[in-house]
Amino acid sequence: MDMEVGQVLHMNGGVGETSYANNSLVQQKVITMTKPITVDAITKLYCSSYPVAIAIADLGCSSGPNTLLVVSELIKAVDSHRRKMSRKSPEYQVFLNDLPGNDFNTIFRSLSVFQNKLRMQLGPDSGPCFFTGVPGSFYGRLFKKNSLHFVHSSYSLQWLSQVPQGLENNKGNIYMASTSPPDVLKAYYKQFQHDFFLFLKCRSEELVDGGRMVLTVLGRRNDDPSSKEGCYIWELLAMALNDMVLEGVIEEEKLNSFNIPQYSPSPTEVKYEVLKEGSFNIDRLEVTEVNWNAYQNETDVSDVLKDGGYNVAKCMRAVAEPLIVSHFGEAIVDQVFQRYREIITDRMSKEKTEFINVIVSLTKA
Amino acid sequence: MDMEVGQVLHMNGGVGETSYANNSLVQQKVITMTKPITVDAITKLYCSSYPVAIAIADLGCSSGPNTLLVVSELIKAVDSHRRKMSRKSPEYQVFLNDLPGNDFNTIFRSLSVFQNKLRMQLGPDSGPCFFTGVPGSFYGRLFKKNSLHFVHSSYSLQWLSQVPQGLENNKGNIYMASTSPPDVLKAYYKQFQHDFFLFLKCRSEELVDGGRMVLTVLGRRNDDPSSKEGCYIWELLAMALNDMVLEGVIEEEKLNSFNIPQYSPSPTEVKYEVLKEGSFNIDRLEVTEVNWNAYQNETDVSDVLKDGGYNVAKCMRAVAEPLIVSHFGEAIVDQVFQRYREIITDRMSKEKTEFINVIVSLTKA
Repeated sequence: MDMEVGQVLHMNGGVGETSYANNSLVQQKVITMTKPITVDAITKLYCSSYPVAIAIADLGCSSGPNTLLVVSELIKAVDSHRRKMSRKSPEYQVFLNDLPGNDFNTIFRSLSVFQNKLRMQLGPDSGPCFFTGVPGSFYGRLFKKNSLHFVHSSYSLQWLSQVPQGLENNKGNIYMASTSPPDVLKAYYKQFQHDFFLFLKCRSEELVDGGRMVLTVLGRRNDDPSSKEGCYIWELLAMALNDMVLEGVIEEEKLNSFNIPQYSPSPTEVKYEVLKEGSFNIDRLEVTEVNWNAYQNETDVSDVLKDGGYNVAKCMRAVAEPLIVSHFGEAIVDQVFQRYREIITDRMSKEKTEFINVIVSLTKA
Repeated sequence: MDMEVGQVLHMNGGVGETSYANNSLVQQKVITMTKPITVDAITKLYCSSYPVAIAIADLGCSSGPNTLLVVSELIKAVDSHRRKMSRKSPEYQVFLNDLPGNDFNTIFRSLSVFQNKLRMQLGPDSGPCFFTGVPGSFYGRLFKKNSLHFVHSSYSLQWLSQVPQGLENNKGNIYMASTSPPDVLKAYYKQFQHDFFLFLKCRSEELVDGGRMVLTVLGRRNDDPSSKEGCYIWELLAMALNDMVLEGVIEEEKLNSFNIPQYSPSPTEVKYEVLKEGSFNIDRLEVTEVNWNAYQNETDVSDVLKDGGYNVAKCMRAVAEPLIVSHFGEAIVDQVFQRYREIITDRMSKEKTEFINVIVSLTKA
């Protein structure tokens, strides 16, 4: 059951049908911010061996406007470089991965338009680009050995494979919080270590020697896992739920057994697992931040995009709704997110609210 | 438009949601009949080079109970043989292809159960099996060069990429018929030649040297393309439609412009294209037949499965409904298939009615 909850959440990868416009804005912003790192990595990969075919995997691709964004950036980067070098275009094999519940049909039906557009942009002498969908958890093998050149994953690896065991003492909280007992923090960290190590192990088998990965994870700067920057967004949801316990809408016991299967790691924790697993060299390890309301400070977007509380609540609803429904039932879900939105709006008006991104660029040694 | 019609039809590949149980019986029977040929081909492929990973593609996989049937037979055949030879299991990479409108979501959501069952059957020392979905027409490249070991396709290649050009004189018919003028037969054959040649060309680029293909096509024995054995099932549908023209339900002009984008080739025609394309050696070329009502003569099936007219009409409706709806509109479709069923039932009671299958097993030279 816990496994399923984790899967439902990760499956949505932040993009639900009801709320995808906003969420896509945060992800889109992160993808744009990370572009120099991904472009640098794939260009170096291409130049290191000039493969006749490049196999690229996007893990946790979701199903929405951002699904093909990174892939097109990666292909354009290779194409631009091979032109400079007057080389014949490679063929591209793109693997789009997400959990089996992801809406692959929608992706597949949008591919023809995408491919035509890409072909127009690249010109007729560019190699063909073959797309495949790969259903399954990336906390296990997904591809045959030595078959990938490049792995990308954005905003997916913070999802754990399951809710950690041993969170019985995390009463009143739904995630790591300043009031969480040490064994709760330890249980969360242990699950992250297990999952991220396994992820690295599987990818090291699947990548060719010299293959590269760029991973962007929702994380934190601070070494303290219960620090506000990693946990605040969930703490506000816990506030909404606790209010509903006080009013008798939710049973206290029900809230006490609810925990989010996520871990937002620090760069140090990411680095530690990479070194421990041992297959990869770290080329870059960076931290960036993006405002909860990604386009708050932009001048060329509509007012709707700037309505912080509304947008962030929508975004978080896409992520959290399947979990809330599966644990508390359908009946209370509108009320939860109405309260959550009010709390978020209040806090955003009073303080700086940011998501922290940990970005790591790796090469298989 | 014609292209789209062809695609809709091929997309359904004979399996529609309303009618899949029966249709799957014909296909299932054909797959079972062809099993000795597919098993022989993949065993020889495995023994020729003992690859550490075998890449298998099923083209026109559809979405139903038969989708994974062939794949599991192929994997079991390799596994059984490698045990006899006391070899370490290869990894398996399975590509499931159909047009982008195919319901890949349903396949993907059924994979976990299928994989667990397969793992149980094969035992723990068998290599992992990775599944991917590949949306797109097989009358074009789908995979990178030299990336496949084995290609399978059953009951899909009779669908043309489009309705042939130049069928204006095929009045009163909806397919090749004894009353079709020679230029209509020529136009159909030309389209088949174009499509099948292109199919072979694309696969020859994608298969490794020594790679193999087993293709089962709905075909005919007779050299005459308008002979009854290839065309009869469509002639009966034409009868139903012509009756409706006589009664004023359908406009004559509307019927005259309706043609089925299919070609049921003879073994000679299949052989001719293979030799012309030149990349493949023919290992086997066989013809089998299956009764329109696949389980008519079986004793261990329920009476429902034996109701010939009902089952065949259901099967054909799954195949033809998207075409009928797209050309004639939704309103008449129930009436068409009610009449079609009556005609089929009548004919099945009076004569032997069979589908002819042309099966070719090829090795890339």
